[in-house]
Amino acid sequence: MKPYDQRQLFRKQEENGTTSGMCDNYLQANMITLPKEFAFDFLLFCQRNPKPCPVVDVLEAGVTKPKVADADIRTDLPKYRIYRNGEFKEEVDDIQDYWREDLVTFSIGCSFTFEKALLEVGIELLHQQQKRVVPMYKTNIPCEKAGNFEGNMVVSMRALKQDEIERASQITEHFQTSHGGPVHIGHPEEIGIYDIHNPDYGESISFNDEERVPVFWACGVTPQNVCLHARPEIMISHAPGHMLITDQLEERKRG
Amino acid sequence: MKPYDQRQLFRKQEENGTTSGMCDNYLQANMITLPKEFAFDFLLFCQRNPKPCPVVDVLEAGVTKPKVADADIRTDLPKYRIYRNGEFKEEVDDIQDYWREDLVTFSIGCSFTFEKALLEVGIELLHQQQKRVVPMYKTNIPCEKAGNFEGNMVVSMRALKQDEIERASQITEHFQTSHGGPVHIGHPEEIGIYDIHNPDYGESISFNDEERVPVFWACGVTPQNVCLHARPEIMISHAPGHMLITDQLEERKRG
Repeated sequence: MKPYDQRQLFRKQEENGTTSGMCDNYLQANMITLPKEFAFDFLLFCQRNPKPCPVVDVLEAGVTKPKVADADIRTDLPKYRIYRNGEFKEEVDDIQDYWREDLVTFSIGCSFTFEKALLEVGIELLHQQQKRVVPMYKTNIPCEKAGNFEGNMVVSMRALKQDEIERASQITEHFQTSHGGPVHIGHPEEIGIYDIHNPDYGESISFNDEERVPVFWACGVTPQNVCLHARPEIMISHAPGHMLITDQLEERKRG
Repeated sequence: MKPYDQRQLFRKQEENGTTSGMCDNYLQANMITLPKEFAFDFLLFCQRNPKPCPVVDVLEAGVTKPKVADADIRTDLPKYRIYRNGEFKEEVDDIQDYWREDLVTFSIGCSFTFEKALLEVGIELLHQQQKRVVPMYKTNIPCEKAGNFEGNMVVSMRALKQDEIERASQITEHFQTSHGGPVHIGHPEEIGIYDIHNPDYGESISFNDEERVPVFWACGVTPQNVCLHARPEIMISHAPGHMLITDQLEERKRG
């Protein structure tokens, strides 16, 4: 299905499931919406921390049509989360009732894109084989602060074979709107992760053989956490796994 | 002289001349200071138009110490210009009397960096040989709008020999904080320039022989014009040619 048609199903509330695996080859993005008074500092945060926060699109206050999709961001994602003063309030299928003219919407790249590129060169992804959500961890790697936006990086982990690591690093380095290359390879405790089988988000995976090395990439949960920490009166995001499907084809550069 | 020592001379008002040629190998930058209410849209403008507006550094509201220099941006440039509601008001050596806690400062790359890289591979720059300010022109190339920030691109021109063009393009393409590669080669009228000997800014140069081709790069005058068009109650910039000398060594990547 084409992105436009898929989004229409979300708009009409005929579907509201995860977008994982939908509209092959089209870029999917995290969405974060904040009041304009927070927008400068958050955009600055993204600029200072491009690995966890690769900006795909930013809309001016009140604008609902993304540059990267012929869509209405108030209705065309399958599911949204509403936060007030940094606390989760509710999950909804449509945010028209919450919309305000001072809201600024950010689209931020996600790792779906580079995962596909890894699969294409024959690198196996255990979480996909095991049908689990990729494991994600809080780390001790500080992001560079901007105004009230601050916090440590959240990372996702993929366990690779030793001889796949260099290639995976080179390939993902090219996906600048999809978190780029790894931020750490091999020693989880060095970045503050003490139990690899107990992720903070997503699901634990079982390493199929002892030869696998954990490789960590910056993760789009980082900007969400950092925004909540700034405690905006309102913040709206996509529900986890329920992304904006854009009309933009994924980057195809290879390492 | 080291950047810090040179900036001290500006701070003490013992010098206030152009920074052209000063502190070899250190990055120099354009400075633009705006009230915070304009900062989000302007940062978004820069992000949407990276060639004319390569962001080197952005400071939070009220912050006077750049990340790229152990400096005070209120005193450590040789000369500043004050604009009110989009109109030039005065030129001053120090902006402490104009400073406000809501002012946000942007440092934007300039072409000094890539010019040096061109000279190093033996490409002659006529404006330097003729001791003139590089000629700059208004074009018909629209920038991508962000909020009230809009306008056409201003470009600088260097007249090159046919066999230098490809190399110059490749080299400058690598200097992402210094306007990147050319935006146009060879046909000034296609970008709205009808008299190459009558630049809108800088000075006209004489082509030493007929074989030279005009090559155009995006120019840091663009963001200044675009900011003035938004008519902020106050805007402060460096005076032309009187830049912020940073502590950061220039990029050294080569094409």
